[in-house]
Amino acid sequence: MLGEKTLERFRVTPGKRVRLKDHDPAWAAADELADSSHKEIKASAKKLLKQTLEELAEAQELLYADNHHSILLIFQAMDAAGKDGTIKHVMSGVNPQGCQVFSFKQPSVMELDHTFLWRHQRVMPERGRIGIFNRSYYEDVLVVKVHPELLGRHLPERAKDQKQFWQDRYDDINAMERHLDRNGTMVLKFFLNVSKHEQKQRFLERLDRPEKNWKFSAGDLAERKHWDDYMSAYEDAMTATGTKTAPWYIIPADHKWVTRTVVAGIVTNAIRSLKLTMPALPPEELVKLAVARAELEQE
Amino acid sequence: MLGEKTLERFRVTPGKRVRLKDHDPAWAAADELADSSHKEIKASAKKLLKQTLEELAEAQELLYADNHHSILLIFQAMDAAGKDGTIKHVMSGVNPQGCQVFSFKQPSVMELDHTFLWRHQRVMPERGRIGIFNRSYYEDVLVVKVHPELLGRHLPERAKDQKQFWQDRYDDINAMERHLDRNGTMVLKFFLNVSKHEQKQRFLERLDRPEKNWKFSAGDLAERKHWDDYMSAYEDAMTATGTKTAPWYIIPADHKWVTRTVVAGIVTNAIRSLKLTMPALPPEELVKLAVARAELEQE
Repeated sequence: MLGEKTLERFRVTPGKRVRLKDHDPAWAAADELADSSHKEIKASAKKLLKQTLEELAEAQELLYADNHHSILLIFQAMDAAGKDGTIKHVMSGVNPQGCQVFSFKQPSVMELDHTFLWRHQRVMPERGRIGIFNRSYYEDVLVVKVHPELLGRHLPERAKDQKQFWQDRYDDINAMERHLDRNGTMVLKFFLNVSKHEQKQRFLERLDRPEKNWKFSAGDLAERKHWDDYMSAYEDAMTATGTKTAPWYIIPADHKWVTRTVVAGIVTNAIRSLKLTMPALPPEELVKLAVARAELEQE
Repeated sequence: MLGEKTLERFRVTPGKRVRLKDHDPAWAAADELADSSHKEIKASAKKLLKQTLEELAEAQELLYADNHHSILLIFQAMDAAGKDGTIKHVMSGVNPQGCQVFSFKQPSVMELDHTFLWRHQRVMPERGRIGIFNRSYYEDVLVVKVHPELLGRHLPERAKDQKQFWQDRYDDINAMERHLDRNGTMVLKFFLNVSKHEQKQRFLERLDRPEKNWKFSAGDLAERKHWDDYMSAYEDAMTATGTKTAPWYIIPADHKWVTRTVVAGIVTNAIRSLKLTMPALPPEELVKLAVARAELEQE
């Protein structure tokens, strides 16, 4: 598994302004692997991911047996950054009974009739589970900030002061995540940081390969035109909500194996930091087990 | 309807310590009605309530047509203070399509596997509706504070500092109610303030009258023994969460007609304060109506 120190470098520092130009989407453990060939890197990455996934599966079993904590993983990114693939590859080794994935698309009429947090609050993970949000309430300070017309007319007294409006949303998000943390839900947030150039390559691939065509929608290209606005909205959101209790991680996303290995490593480390152990029965319960054994054997 | 000034006297002042001994459970508009006989008071109260309820029904229709705001009414009280009766009498004139009542009893295993706010967040009222909570998340800082063993063992890292633990819960509640307010849900909270003496009379009535027997449970008597602890928990909770955006009202509850008239008056006033009007169509829509009329008439 990647070392803790390596993983920490992706964490947004609370109180420090996020600048995405300081984060290389193509980072590939270059320091450690400078002398390796491309093939060697791929092979060792595969081995590393496999090993991390085994550790993650173990960690998640402890989480489930302990039944005190839950984990909420939030994935946000531009299109084609690899959210779906990361969720698939990182979580596939995990027992589905302990894991729930929710994808949030455009809100329904019923959802718009509640606050922007409501549809997410309804499906928060239970104790012992990992909940995964493929997009989340952060869309309400990202796509909605880039396209404020999406706010619609359903809000009653929209703050005239636009800056205050977004700050209020960040505050509400921070308060909710603080509440989750206090009550046993650990929140980890991942921004898959793909470069504009790599997105272009992946879009072209979706257009070129018939089996990938379904993944392309004309709307994706329209959003690409707002790239700089999105980066700026991400910077603002991660600066305002990258807290100690609910940290943001900016994950290099130009190489899929890097994304997957780093995310798996961070999640595994986080569960381990809870220092869980398999629940042990108190002495009086152990006595009951002995009685049960005796009864069975005498049958 | 009771005047605005009369209604305001029941509102908890933000930042001021609540002392229940300053609030008379038997208040009955004595100043205004000092010279009236009991019979006269009852008759004029009945008239007043009827009039207020008509105004409330009108106000709620506006709320529904406007479809921008929702109202959350929270009722908390000791047993037999009249929560059920107040909800029944105050809301019966209101269109049920615009009104949803939720009673919160002991949490289920599934509910305990989430944070204490979760089961309430799931059923927050949609825009245009009045949501009513018969008991609420405030139970988690009232009955749970009086009986901390109810916290169970499911919380992971319970604050050692008990004072901070309850303060955190108040903070989480305030943050959620602020979020609701910002997004169009007006929150009004009612404590039905019944005296210990009047509760005794109502319990005796439940024991005496066979058709009321079902309302009595032995547990009610056990809770009565913790009366002072409850009053102290109510004072703490209302002091900490009696905010400008989500005010508490301490409603005299020894006379049922007072409780009902005052609650109906406060709710009606609150909806009126939104200054809603029936939605008017823009000119281009009015043209379409004219076209439709012409088409129908030529059929």
